[in-house]
Amino acid sequence: MAVVMKPDATEEDIKRVIKLIEETYGLRVDVSRGEFQTLLGLIGDEDKVDFDRLALLPGVDKAYRITSPYRLVARSFFPEDRVIEIKGVKIGGKNKPIFIAGPCAVESKEQIFRVAKEVKEAGADMLRGGAFKPRTSIHTFQGLGEEGLEFLAQAGEEFGMPTVSEVRSERHVEMVAKYADILQIGARNMYNQDLIEAAAKQKKPVLIKRNFGASIEEYLSFSERAVAQGNKDVILCERGIVPIGRGRQLTRYSLDLSAVPTIKKETYLPIIVDPSHGTGRRDLIYPMSKAAIAAGAHGLMIEVHYNPNEALSDGPQMIVPSELKKIIDVCMKIYELNMVES
Amino acid sequence: MAVVMKPDATEEDIKRVIKLIEETYGLRVDVSRGEFQTLLGLIGDEDKVDFDRLALLPGVDKAYRITSPYRLVARSFFPEDRVIEIKGVKIGGKNKPIFIAGPCAVESKEQIFRVAKEVKEAGADMLRGGAFKPRTSIHTFQGLGEEGLEFLAQAGEEFGMPTVSEVRSERHVEMVAKYADILQIGARNMYNQDLIEAAAKQKKPVLIKRNFGASIEEYLSFSERAVAQGNKDVILCERGIVPIGRGRQLTRYSLDLSAVPTIKKETYLPIIVDPSHGTGRRDLIYPMSKAAIAAGAHGLMIEVHYNPNEALSDGPQMIVPSELKKIIDVCMKIYELNMVES
Amino acid sequence: MAVVMKPDATEEDIKRVIKLIEETYGLRVDVSRGEFQTLLGLIGDEDKVDFDRLALLPGVDKAYRITSPYRLVARSFFPEDRVIEIKGVKIGGKNKPIFIAGPCAVESKEQIFRVAKEVKEAGADMLRGGAFKPRTSIHTFQGLGEEGLEFLAQAGEEFGMPTVSEVRSERHVEMVAKYADILQIGARNMYNQDLIEAAAKQKKPVLIKRNFGASIEEYLSFSERAVAQGNKDVILCERGIVPIGRGRQLTRYSLDLSAVPTIKKETYLPIIVDPSHGTGRRDLIYPMSKAAIAAGAHGLMIEVHYNPNEALSDGPQMIVPSELKKIIDVCMKIYELNMVES
Amino acid sequence: MAVVMKPDATEEDIKRVIKLIEETYGLRVDVSRGEFQTLLGLIGDEDKVDFDRLALLPGVDKAYRITSPYRLVARSFFPEDRVIEIKGVKIGGKNKPIFIAGPCAVESKEQIFRVAKEVKEAGADMLRGGAFKPRTSIHTFQGLGEEGLEFLAQAGEEFGMPTVSEVRSERHVEMVAKYADILQIGARNMYNQDLIEAAAKQKKPVLIKRNFGASIEEYLSFSERAVAQGNKDVILCERGIVPIGRGRQLTRYSLDLSAVPTIKKETYLPIIVDPSHGTGRRDLIYPMSKAAIAAGAHGLMIEVHYNPNEALSDGPQMIVPSELKKIIDVCMKIYELNMVES
Repeated sequence: MAVVMKPDATEEDIKRVIKLIEETYGLRVDVSRGEFQTLLGLIGDEDKVDFDRLALLPGVDKAYRITSPYRLVARSFFPEDRVIEIKGVKIGGKNKPIFIAGPCAVESKEQIFRVAKEVKEAGADMLRGGAFKPRTSIHTFQGLGEEGLEFLAQAGEEFGMPTVSEVRSERHVEMVAKYADILQIGARNMYNQDLIEAAAKQKKPVLIKRNFGASIEEYLSFSERAVAQGNKDVILCERGIVPIGRGRQLTRYSLDLSAVPTIKKETYLPIIVDPSHGTGRRDLIYPMSKAAIAAGAHGLMIEVHYNPNEALSDGPQMIVPSELKKIIDVCMKIYELNMVES
Repeated sequence: MAVVMKPDATEEDIKRVIKLIEETYGLRVDVSRGEFQTLLGLIGDEDKVDFDRLALLPGVDKAYRITSPYRLVARSFFPEDRVIEIKGVKIGGKNKPIFIAGPCAVESKEQIFRVAKEVKEAGADMLRGGAFKPRTSIHTFQGLGEEGLEFLAQAGEEFGMPTVSEVRSERHVEMVAKYADILQIGARNMYNQDLIEAAAKQKKPVLIKRNFGASIEEYLSFSERAVAQGNKDVILCERGIVPIGRGRQLTRYSLDLSAVPTIKKETYLPIIVDPSHGTGRRDLIYPMSKAAIAAGAHGLMIEVHYNPNEALSDGPQMIVPSELKKIIDVCMKIYELNMVES
Repeated sequence: MAVVMKPDATEEDIKRVIKLIEETYGLRVDVSRGEFQTLLGLIGDEDKVDFDRLALLPGVDKAYRITSPYRLVARSFFPEDRVIEIKGVKIGGKNKPIFIAGPCAVESKEQIFRVAKEVKEAGADMLRGGAFKPRTSIHTFQGLGEEGLEFLAQAGEEFGMPTVSEVRSERHVEMVAKYADILQIGARNMYNQDLIEAAAKQKKPVLIKRNFGASIEEYLSFSERAVAQGNKDVILCERGIVPIGRGRQLTRYSLDLSAVPTIKKETYLPIIVDPSHGTGRRDLIYPMSKAAIAAGAHGLMIEVHYNPNEALSDGPQMIVPSELKKIIDVCMKIYELNMVES
Repeated sequence: MAVVMKPDATEEDIKRVIKLIEETYGLRVDVSRGEFQTLLGLIGDEDKVDFDRLALLPGVDKAYRITSPYRLVARSFFPEDRVIEIKGVKIGGKNKPIFIAGPCAVESKEQIFRVAKEVKEAGADMLRGGAFKPRTSIHTFQGLGEEGLEFLAQAGEEFGMPTVSEVRSERHVEMVAKYADILQIGARNMYNQDLIEAAAKQKKPVLIKRNFGASIEEYLSFSERAVAQGNKDVILCERGIVPIGRGRQLTRYSLDLSAVPTIKKETYLPIIVDPSHGTGRRDLIYPMSKAAIAAGAHGLMIEVHYNPNEALSDGPQMIVPSELKKIIDVCMKIYELNMVES
């Protein structure tokens, strides 16, 4: 916690700042007089201080938070890896990567059962499927709703896989929690604190995707809100950032794999990668899956359909079960290399 | 609507694409054979076509949407300016810019009445105030809820100003619509189609802020969803994009004023600017307000408090009523210059 | 200058850091023990310290620069506005905004003389014209070279306007300095320290454009390199950043006008705006010019041609002299409003 | 090549556009009349057309390039992988990944010989070392110049490794080409066409790094300029893009590994990855190196020093030779997995 005074700040300016910090916010101040500028170190609970306000006082050059905006999820406070166990499947720490697979949307009982059977045979650990789809166009398939959740739960039960489904609205939190084993918060809702908190209160694991415009710091700050509800079963998921630069964009998003080892340093929570949404291109899923595991991801979430071209949504980013099997096989070998080396 | 074939695409590749477009999607195809590559022009309703799927067929180099992803809000389809009238206040077209002012959050009846009185005297047209605050930290003031909305409505009534309040959750849409004259969708919820649609159905004007990571094209596509509910009373609001580049960021966001004339070319909807959130710095509100009106904005939304330093939220980006008056006065002169010149 | 220790840092960790700072870098350290973390304030010349190296020591959480990476151009060290005078034209401080106009490229003696005459009549203060054009395609017009510079200088002489021309290569620095009154460093060369330094050494004013991917902090750091050559006649120029978000980009760049008041707070150097390159759209030049002056810019640089459609380069972002006159007239009125209010 | 007319474009508008395209630019036009809008397909050499100018004609909604802005480097024109051989080391295609290692800067003959010996023993294929360093601060080590190049060449000779060195200025192109086997164009110079062309003319392989603000499309367009000089020995290198989002940035750049498979689809040129500059953090080099090779990179360029903490530049992103060996060993195993699977 630091306030830097301007080179031409007066003694009175410095006193005014110290007074505000000590009297209004109740922290102590340590004064370091530098060659050019004076630095005030704040001692106490930084969350009580309005730094932006300090920054506007006369004579103040800048005010910095020095502790992170996240603490409950910080590895520097809690060094041990969080391992989350869901119906026998463990995610996090040194455990083998988990593979979450399934269609973008649950389309029918037949469809989800067939996909579930095939991804299970391919080696998947968990089953995903959307019941409420956020679509960019108004005219497209919006999901089956509660019926879709039921089909998903039945398929998960039948083939022995825990299930993941996205909750898009607070109205549906309890409904999704009734059927799914993991509640997913989509990238567009990463800043939606009400939804995150409502989901976390269900006492089931929550999978929060990173928003495509969010820094890692912001991402962890918002994930902190789930943990603040007393729920430490939070799974993080990198799924691509807005591509940079001018002209035509060759991928839907830029999958930010450097987020994987960076996030593993910052927090004890598991971090997985979604190469399907993260690239939007079926032909990039295989190389980016391998790269994600090589970078240390705790798992992958991949969209799979037996007939991607006929899927009612997101066809171009879905692969077939045989491709999933190929991905899982090679990723397990890369994971073994990771284990030998580490 | 165009599909570009690769330089080495075979006749068979071309026929396969044409067949899919004509038989599956029911559009017609016009073939232009270029020097290097063949271009297929699609004739019919582009929304029926899965372009990403086309892009994956053998021999296809790229598939382009050629019509905009927005149509209902497009000026090219509906050239006339939309003027929205709310309790006698007109916004849009050549009307004078409107000034929406008020505190970040309604803190008490006394507070909102005092602010309302003072911003009215300064020349404000509408009153804003939040009842449900999205805060980045868990420990800070979260808003008064329904009581805050009541106070806001009473203050608006008392001083003759229509009111604007943000709705953050679908659970609150009806409640906010009961009290406020305009329902605001915050930047973090721009991609939240359920919330946008629920708000638009209330048959009150909806003010949608641009997300800080959204292109103008995405912004207009999501605003289209409000209009698709049969509600053409949509007000757009530029409030800053994520700052670019490395190192310390000197403003919270980069206020993208080039969005103002660009959006005015693309759509008939009114576009206002929020220099308070758009910069996060009290000292930038005055110059950026002038610049916004000079760029052609239909209004400004500014956070005002009689004592910004004691405000329970967002103090550093609030100004006092006397500054608001100064802003309104100079902006009205710039608006007059705009009118003479145009 | 601050080093933040991890919550679980040992006394030994802290001592190791202090030892390095004091013995290797020769600065003093002030220790503030916070509730959770210890903060080390460094006293002395921060430039001597390798912060990244500190950040990697055991027990260190983060190391921060606290003073700016720029000092020679910082207003906090040198509060007074820099006014640069070139052949009687003053730029900076409270002086009237200057209007630099001319074609993208000098195409012939006739062309530059005709443009010069017409922009002078429209009210321009300075004449611009490129002799070496950076073009995105290989096949397009590359500029007249030295002959172009001669024509530009003659036209400037004839119509009483100082001249500005871009220098793209160190090989041409002396040549450009022989003819032009101001040496322009283009946005693509903002990070090119050799070129900046070579230009600054010519003892003529240097106009440095902001790179489209640079933060303001980086921009000022690189401008510092010109001043470090003993040349304080540096003019800054905002010309647009990379547009954000997915999909089609409606402008070539996003003109970042919030950079204008922000830069005026950070440095004493004059800052102008280039709405031609900054938007890439002729129809946005008028509104964005007004907005730039309203935001406090010290001038504008605008591409003008008597026949933009036949210009050999950048036609779509050039306007005709009559439009320039309209812009200058309204901008002067906005400047007068600025003066009354300030 | 396509021009889309507005919904309300008149027949006259359409004729005017066709006339311009046919008479001024000499292309043919194919007209597709869609349900809402008319599409004009252009047949002929698109490079002759000024699309921005077309876009401004009355009745025109948008003008699109449909062919890529790069052709000479496009895999769709030249499907076969380019394999570049330098003193027996092959890069590209299915060849084993190459490992380019060495210090950021050549500091002395002893230093570069020691590093060369140690990286050779660790398994490196090529030696890198800078003689002209672009530094962000004025006061830091700027490189040894020609002497550094000599030492580098001698060390490469001694230990049987081709050498790579950055050329920052056109003034030095011939000098660098005299000593180094590969001329490197740094990320800051990716838009510097004069430098790229001058380097390519030396008839030695050129390694061009992607600028941190450039889209892949822009990157390939500028690489095209090297090939346009008749030099097909161009090596591409991903080295990180500007991190997104607000707040503190945890890595210097975001290494964009999705660029690797994307670029491999677009071009036949080899693409390597620089995890040292791409992250700026020594602790991320190991995981990101593995991920780069898993994503299909043709090689890695890594900064190595026997004593990173004492290196005169870029210490925090350098690793020691024993770490390099660990990286090469695991990357070779991942490469073998790639080969089995493909």
